[in-house]
Amino acid sequence: MAEALPGPRMRPHVKAHKCTALAGWQADAGHRTFTCATVREMVGMAAAGLGDDLLLANEVLDCRPLGALDDARVTVAVDSLETIAAAADGGVREVLVDVNVGLPRCGCDPDDAGRIADEARRRGLEVRGVMGYEGHVVGLEDRDERVRQVEEAMAQLVRAHEDVGGDVVSAGGTGTYDINRWATEIQAGSYALMDTAYGKLQLPFRQALFLWSTVISTSPGWAVADAGLKSLGMDHGNPTLDGGKVWFCSDEHITFAPEPGREVKVGDRVRVVPAHVDPTVAYHEVMHLVRGDEVIDTWPVDLRGW
Amino acid sequence: MAEALPGPRMRPHVKAHKCTALAGWQADAGHRTFTCATVREMVGMAAAGLGDDLLLANEVLDCRPLGALDDARVTVAVDSLETIAAAADGGVREVLVDVNVGLPRCGCDPDDAGRIADEARRRGLEVRGVMGYEGHVVGLEDRDERVRQVEEAMAQLVRAHEDVGGDVVSAGGTGTYDINRWATEIQAGSYALMDTAYGKLQLPFRQALFLWSTVISTSPGWAVADAGLKSLGMDHGNPTLDGGKVWFCSDEHITFAPEPGREVKVGDRVRVVPAHVDPTVAYHEVMHLVRGDEVIDTWPVDLRGW
Repeated sequence: MAEALPGPRMRPHVKAHKCTALAGWQADAGHRTFTCATVREMVGMAAAGLGDDLLLANEVLDCRPLGALDDARVTVAVDSLETIAAAADGGVREVLVDVNVGLPRCGCDPDDAGRIADEARRRGLEVRGVMGYEGHVVGLEDRDERVRQVEEAMAQLVRAHEDVGGDVVSAGGTGTYDINRWATEIQAGSYALMDTAYGKLQLPFRQALFLWSTVISTSPGWAVADAGLKSLGMDHGNPTLDGGKVWFCSDEHITFAPEPGREVKVGDRVRVVPAHVDPTVAYHEVMHLVRGDEVIDTWPVDLRGW
Repeated sequence: MAEALPGPRMRPHVKAHKCTALAGWQADAGHRTFTCATVREMVGMAAAGLGDDLLLANEVLDCRPLGALDDARVTVAVDSLETIAAAADGGVREVLVDVNVGLPRCGCDPDDAGRIADEARRRGLEVRGVMGYEGHVVGLEDRDERVRQVEEAMAQLVRAHEDVGGDVVSAGGTGTYDINRWATEIQAGSYALMDTAYGKLQLPFRQALFLWSTVISTSPGWAVADAGLKSLGMDHGNPTLDGGKVWFCSDEHITFAPEPGREVKVGDRVRVVPAHVDPTVAYHEVMHLVRGDEVIDTWPVDLRGW
């Protein structure tokens, strides 16, 4: 990613990994501006010395912990009078106007962006520009369709930017990092670890996050590994499992059918590939960095919680 | 539950809430025997002084942390030579033979239960009896069908019990607590907090676990609350939301359509009802105990992780 989008062209989203150690590797690769989804992620990144330029790409109504950060440059997304007031009252100095570009979530109507910016400036806030996340597009498997819809979404953001001003047009995700040429910076996060959902898009990023779990029971036709719903984000469905077909997950179990001819024994380790990396990582206290069978380092997932 | 199944007729499953404070309330109601799903839950319960009779209703291959518990009575489920060896080698003294009663997960074939028990006794373990979880039955919405299938499942457990011996026949869940008359003790957990999935069964337990989240953005036709995939177990699908229809969840957002005629403003609190309580609780550091709008106590979710 650092080759495709060097330096500030890429603003890695830490919500995907919630890990300052991994963010430190991204910073070493030249990406020293970061995107966050929660106040705790912002505070944790600042505490880890990674606060050169932190964007909270989300609306919050209590910005006081952000205003209290001494050693970080903090920018917050706003899309309403209430979130502007929260930023100003909380001691935040810089904002982006969050614009809805087609995903029914946060962000103002593009036609309102100029008015939001005016109000922010009236409250003494520096408006750095706009952001608008094409989240309804990033996962489309057909690349041509992805290209077409990114252009459509970004036309709205560009139009809003004209009314808002500022240097920053922040948008994009792992599925559109090389397509979104309207954004001045890309907010991708999943590329660092990847998952089976993004794996379908044939991007040049490999899956790096796995659960190594242990077979604890076998029966004729199936086996059970000791990972389950409490260690896997399930909104994208079941994980996949190397050498077997997943039948279903329980709280602490994955029941799977081993591939024909493959013998699975109690005590065997099996590799599970999460379907959605972000809510998977959020269940875990640590990630183990491995090379082959060797654990090289253990990283706290120190940005989780709220 | 304490009225329906007093004292040791009920062995509450702590995996549903992962909270020793809540387990303490269950103990105060006369339930001093507990079921756990992980070693950490066992160790945490013992440390909290709730170790009168702890059952790890799951297979594990490293029992040493359990053998090291001084102040707790520890029983572990076994279903294979490997798990028997792990119990004996780990210093565990008592086991139950886990029997597959129809759910394709852990548990030995009923025909093998006697042999497993013999092997456990040969290794010096005390065999307290059998367990067999009818997890494929507990969620069936048609009560008659549930009754029929519990009987079918328990016929297998009773048969295995004849071969195994011992006083304990441990089985059941929230959906079968008043149906399963073959078990000497019921392992239900969800009843204490409930969720929308079990809510469909018209049981005499009310939902007690909610996410109070804050509306952070509104648009014509929808609003966005600040809870999402990282605060909700999603394997049973979307949560429900009082006063609105949930469209979809993102990592830190729920997009919902307010009920017709209901005005939702930024800053409003909305109540979210999880679809599956167990993996929801596992995301949270604390639960707030409330009466009306007042927070009476804050309970650490101290049994989470592994």
